Amino acid sequence: MMPKNRVEAFSDGVIAVAITLLALDLPIPDPETTHDLAATLGRHWPSFAAFAVSFLTIGIVWINHHAMLRRIARVDHTTLILNVLLLMSICLLPFSTALLADYLTASHGQQLAAAIYGGSLLLMSVGFIAVQRHVLVVRPDLLHEGVTQETRLRVLKRNRVGLLPYAVATVGAAISGYVTFGISLVIAVYYAVPSTTSDVAEWSAHERASG
Amino acid sequence: MMPKNRVEAFSDGVIAVAITLLALDLPIPDPETTHDLAATLGRHWPSFAAFAVSFLTIGIVWINHHAMLRRIARVDHTTLILNVLLLMSICLLPFSTALLADYLTASHGQQLAAAIYGGSLLLMSVGFIAVQRHVLVVRPDLLHEGVTQETRLRVLKRNRVGLLPYAVATVGAAISGYVTFGISLVIAVYYAVPSTTSDVAEWSAHERASG
Amino acid sequence: MMPKNRVEAFSDGVIAVAITLLALDLPIPDPETTHDLAATLGRHWPSFAAFAVSFLTIGIVWINHHAMLRRIARVDHTTLILNVLLLMSICLLPFSTALLADYLTASHGQQLAAAIYGGSLLLMSVGFIAVQRHVLVVRPDLLHEGVTQETRLRVLKRNRVGLLPYAVATVGAAISGYVTFGISLVIAVYYAVPSTTSDVAEWSAHERASG
Amino acid sequence: MMPKNRVEAFSDGVIAVAITLLALDLPIPDPETTHDLAATLGRHWPSFAAFAVSFLTIGIVWINHHAMLRRIARVDHTTLILNVLLLMSICLLPFSTALLADYLTASHGQQLAAAIYGGSLLLMSVGFIAVQRHVLVVRPDLLHEGVTQETRLRVLKRNRVGLLPYAVATVGAAISGYVTFGISLVIAVYYAVPSTTSDVAEWSAHERASG
Repeated sequence: MMPKNRVEAFSDGVIAVAITLLALDLPIPDPETTHDLAATLGRHWPSFAAFAVSFLTIGIVWINHHAMLRRIARVDHTTLILNVLLLMSICLLPFSTALLADYLTASHGQQLAAAIYGGSLLLMSVGFIAVQRHVLVVRPDLLHEGVTQETRLRVLKRNRVGLLPYAVATVGAAISGYVTFGISLVIAVYYAVPSTTSDVAEWSAHERASG
Repeated sequence: MMPKNRVEAFSDGVIAVAITLLALDLPIPDPETTHDLAATLGRHWPSFAAFAVSFLTIGIVWINHHAMLRRIARVDHTTLILNVLLLMSICLLPFSTALLADYLTASHGQQLAAAIYGGSLLLMSVGFIAVQRHVLVVRPDLLHEGVTQETRLRVLKRNRVGLLPYAVATVGAAISGYVTFGISLVIAVYYAVPSTTSDVAEWSAHERASG
Repeated sequence: MMPKNRVEAFSDGVIAVAITLLALDLPIPDPETTHDLAATLGRHWPSFAAFAVSFLTIGIVWINHHAMLRRIARVDHTTLILNVLLLMSICLLPFSTALLADYLTASHGQQLAAAIYGGSLLLMSVGFIAVQRHVLVVRPDLLHEGVTQETRLRVLKRNRVGLLPYAVATVGAAISGYVTFGISLVIAVYYAVPSTTSDVAEWSAHERASG
Repeated sequence: MMPKNRVEAFSDGVIAVAITLLALDLPIPDPETTHDLAATLGRHWPSFAAFAVSFLTIGIVWINHHAMLRRIARVDHTTLILNVLLLMSICLLPFSTALLADYLTASHGQQLAAAIYGGSLLLMSVGFIAVQRHVLVVRPDLLHEGVTQETRLRVLKRNRVGLLPYAVATVGAAISGYVTFGISLVIAVYYAVPSTTSDVAEWSAHERASG
């Protein structure tokens, strides 16, 4: 087992780079072939919208990652590998975001691009659950002592519930890419609103009690 | 509530990546189609000038972010989300800088590109105020104990005053992109000069008193 | 001699950026020239497969780097320079991964691209051994006191044994790029399986004893 | 005045990103237009050589930055701004390295590209001296108490001496880009050799005495 500080530092680094790389897909039209900059940028509105949704989503993932690691006292090799796989799914987001942005208003490929986008968000959620499940169920000895059985069950349940909307978003791509994108937007905004994330409040209480 | 150390680490990471990505837009002319490297680089002078101004601006934002977090003892969910939105606005700068650089000397699109550049700087200032306001006004319990009511009012006032030049820079794009760029340059140099930023000195005094 | 905390921070940063840059080579087909997105993405399957293998490999390198630095109490100038060279070899991976992905199914260049990929992984292993050897053999005074002669010999041996598969993968490129890629995949999965990496367990034991 | 830990974290981040971005210029020839991968990569040998030299150079700059900050106990606003300017010069290196690599074997522009490369290294050295000078001469109260007048003079002298080879490399571009590149290579190797950098040893001694 290892202390967790370098896991935090490495995860923060990867997530920080991935979230910033999202901006690389924002369109900078070539002045020589562009006649109307406003119209060209306007046509690329999905790039800006997808940037905002994915940025907020990764930001929330970082907050949740933060909350997850705070429950953990030590990490074992499996936690490290599962965390690497979770980071891999996060690093897919600049790719799937660019794909969605480029194909959302295209005459073809819209549904596939949206399914890949929804699927990458779903994969990220599954990766998250995999790390959480390993620590909360398989190796609860890695947790801080103050984490009760009740807390463990609640976190696991909340994670499982969180899978559903991304599964719907992925399947919804069969109807339209806008369904996928709309659901992803709603999920990001939902988790950004303070009252919906009890994790933080809960941990505050725990830490006051134990600290 | 959470301790702030990972917020610092993540913010430092995102700002470090965003400031470094500015350099990706510096022009490397293709040797096969370039006949006069000096002339080609010279024609791209706005890329170098915009790189310098945006780099200095983000550097100053980082210093201010640093000063802001030093006043804070803990963070709540809203602080984290507002900070993610602030980081999002910072990550827009490589895009808006490249756009300004490419269109400043173009025959069209100059005003729009400059307005987007000024607007992204304005957005960043608004994002900064949003985080500050939440902590200083809505949740002063998150602050270190030594932060007086007087300090809080002064910081808020300074932030509001800081909005004005960027608003002028954005509106000034209607006259010329050079107006926007000139004002942005002056603002960056102004804040880089030591005597104009009392925040640091102020906190030095506070910390000596409380530490 | 210097403390090691900034070496950790810098190494974490470089590895985090390198691992995330792997995703930049994932193909985003141009909507205007692509007629069948599924087929186009399908043709680029080596990009996705190589991304996964290299990501997992760098992730494992990071875990090993982590374990290595934990044995070290202080660093000297040679350790720092050897670590910079190790990081250089890690930063070559996004390049060699993209090369392998682009040429694995091409009509020519497949073997060279695979040899470069295998060679860059081999170089990384050699870089790793160079740092380890310097600390474990030349300057054992840099180690934590609890590191026994037995541990040092075992770590060195494990590192040397780790060279062989990458050497085979590099030479195997002469047969086919798929040989190189297959071996690299097997190595990554092998090291990801918990029971095969005794380093972590070993150090856990050490730290309990000494901590 | 501020503590220096976030300056370290931010500087480490920027330098880590800049050093890793060097690899983005390594050539990945398009399989469809390349007939002989070995020959094409061979023609691009300056990209690989320049990558290695610049990577080692930035690695050494990071080591020196490390040593510099260890002498410092606190930072003031001017230190922060000068450090941002130093980081700006470091972030120019991926650009100037790519320019040198692309023009070293071109039929034109070689001397200008080399002068820009040498000039960017010179600028980085000047940036380094500016931070050092501010702390060692203008604000010695920011230093740790154990830093003697003798140490301060020696560090300043070593920094000034370090300017000369980069000045020669820049001026040497008028003869040939190979002169610039050769000198830069020699400088990087020279500083990588342990015995030539007394800074580390010196500080080791200091810290043992004071710690």
